[in-house]
Amino acid sequence: MNLTSFNPPRRILMGPGPSDISPQVLQAQSRPIIGHLDPLFVNMMDEIKALLQYAFQTTNQHTFAVSAPGSAGMETCFVNLVEPGDKVIVCINGVFGQRMLENVERCGGIAVVIEDAWGQPVSPAKVEQALQQHPDSKIVAFVHAETSTGVASDAQALCGLAKQHGCLSIVDAVTSVGGIPVLVDEWGIDAIYSGSQKCLSCVPGLSPVSFSPAAVEKLKGRKTKVQSWFLDQSLVMAYWSGEQKRSYHHTAPVTALYALHESLLMLHQEGLEQAWQRHAQQHALLAAGLDKLGLNLMVEIAYRLPQLNLVAVPEGVDEQAVRARLLNDYNLEIGAGLGQFAGKAWRIGLMGYAARQENVSLCLAALAEVLE
Amino acid sequence: MNLTSFNPPRRILMGPGPSDISPQVLQAQSRPIIGHLDPLFVNMMDEIKALLQYAFQTTNQHTFAVSAPGSAGMETCFVNLVEPGDKVIVCINGVFGQRMLENVERCGGIAVVIEDAWGQPVSPAKVEQALQQHPDSKIVAFVHAETSTGVASDAQALCGLAKQHGCLSIVDAVTSVGGIPVLVDEWGIDAIYSGSQKCLSCVPGLSPVSFSPAAVEKLKGRKTKVQSWFLDQSLVMAYWSGEQKRSYHHTAPVTALYALHESLLMLHQEGLEQAWQRHAQQHALLAAGLDKLGLNLMVEIAYRLPQLNLVAVPEGVDEQAVRARLLNDYNLEIGAGLGQFAGKAWRIGLMGYAARQENVSLCLAALAEVLE
Repeated sequence: MNLTSFNPPRRILMGPGPSDISPQVLQAQSRPIIGHLDPLFVNMMDEIKALLQYAFQTTNQHTFAVSAPGSAGMETCFVNLVEPGDKVIVCINGVFGQRMLENVERCGGIAVVIEDAWGQPVSPAKVEQALQQHPDSKIVAFVHAETSTGVASDAQALCGLAKQHGCLSIVDAVTSVGGIPVLVDEWGIDAIYSGSQKCLSCVPGLSPVSFSPAAVEKLKGRKTKVQSWFLDQSLVMAYWSGEQKRSYHHTAPVTALYALHESLLMLHQEGLEQAWQRHAQQHALLAAGLDKLGLNLMVEIAYRLPQLNLVAVPEGVDEQAVRARLLNDYNLEIGAGLGQFAGKAWRIGLMGYAARQENVSLCLAALAEVLE
Repeated sequence: MNLTSFNPPRRILMGPGPSDISPQVLQAQSRPIIGHLDPLFVNMMDEIKALLQYAFQTTNQHTFAVSAPGSAGMETCFVNLVEPGDKVIVCINGVFGQRMLENVERCGGIAVVIEDAWGQPVSPAKVEQALQQHPDSKIVAFVHAETSTGVASDAQALCGLAKQHGCLSIVDAVTSVGGIPVLVDEWGIDAIYSGSQKCLSCVPGLSPVSFSPAAVEKLKGRKTKVQSWFLDQSLVMAYWSGEQKRSYHHTAPVTALYALHESLLMLHQEGLEQAWQRHAQQHALLAAGLDKLGLNLMVEIAYRLPQLNLVAVPEGVDEQAVRARLLNDYNLEIGAGLGQFAGKAWRIGLMGYAARQENVSLCLAALAEVLE
């Protein structure tokens, strides 16, 4: 083997994630490693917890970062809260709702599937109907911001319905946290997971989660062991919790948590409202520019995500060739369509540190040149 | 909240892991992020695969890094290879064998437990007896290098027995790979997992795994779906495999993989044999120095791990106070005893980049001063 160190170019990441990372966060990650039980590290974990509570807008004690990517955060919510035989209403309007269904089935849950078209939000009316038809349901699960389509669903309404019918809610907020409002306590979300590599602009590989007291109660009252040892929150809690002596569960990804600490600190310093506003502003600039280029956003404005823009590929355009030219000639990454939108759409992300005017301007200029 | 950036001190990590990390690896990790489907990144993943094949001494195609810590690597092996009702011989001689048992049970496997005392290796005779008594066994699982005790078991003998009796072997090599010989193909290991943060001296958070063709066959012939979507190797394979178009499964921890690439490159440049020799040499220096201080290594020399040294706490010494002084006054971390050895032993690690003469000398000098 004749291999050398990997020296990546400087790309601008405007795809569906990972998003651009501030040099400040990358620098934090490169600081010297200390032990995962070092008192200084444990203290930093407490700070991360407080910062995550801020990002999630919650006082939930059970708030921390799963030591693995968002898909493991999703699995954390399902394996801990779904017991074999539990009926779960699963809302599918894109790739990640489908993945939730996979999770329910693999946990031995009984799924009641609510489908909405890709590009449409989850219908609260359909969820209400399902809750009425299945009064023995235990959980309602849905995706707040569908990364595969760029659609926001009404998390507040859906969690309200779940609560009315005595169900817990599981909410995928991988792409929403930091980009649009996510108010865990105000909306009554019971279990939520996000990803580090979207609007938080941290390195990929971590999944912030938060469980409400009701979710923790359900976890504590389980009749069966959680099927995943690694994701078993009753065990992980003993490592992340400040109330007692930290007990070793697994080795935390120390340097990735340095990065998460720094990125959450930056979010806190900017302020959540300001971050939401910045995403909205940059989205407006992008939308206006795309319109001038004759490119259409495929999601209706009422439920369009500012941070993930689904753009229709114009008739006769080789979408893959366009992405390749953007990447190779401009070091600019935009995303391909996923699932039903493969080949038909691009996904332009404006997430976290990437949601800046210079990026929007470059993206529009490069698209204009490549599509000319 | 009045929080600031986290600035860790420079510690010397001589505990049970994470180990010290070369500045070269931390630097690699801080390079600009690129997309997880970027052709340049995919090419780097192929290089990681080749480097892992070298580290594991295998030609297994199914060789890559799980995007989560070693405990998730363990779970990867069990959830993919144990089907409900499968009989699994689980060898317990420390914390991690116990964790294997948890995994078997949570997969719905039927565990046949072989116990050896903590501080002793797994007994091949007991395993052979169990295989004879349980001819319907499907898998033999054991820990090659027990991090909780510092004991090496005879992986070659145990895998040979498994094969003779038509069983697959699952081997925990979290602490062994890079520190002592691990010869996957020569020993006939079917499924192996390691950790990035031990003798590979990479950042914590990744778990290299390798499956033999027989293990892949068992996976492909499963009657039930793997209970974990995130760890389902039939899905992950499509992302890591070079044979077809990469399909998205989860977002890889891009920057952590930069670090793994660099640390594996350093191992390749040093050479495996040289790395094993370095661990042995530094261990010899440490052992001689401890002896001079009147400190006893608790594991017999025949099966003692050079990279993890179990040191008896002398009568009347407050072991926690000693560790605290080493950490606070010398920035030197050594490990506490775990499980049965809690309070009775220290664990001094000589793993990867930490296995250097200046560290051994400092550790001995600091211990001498603190114990004076």
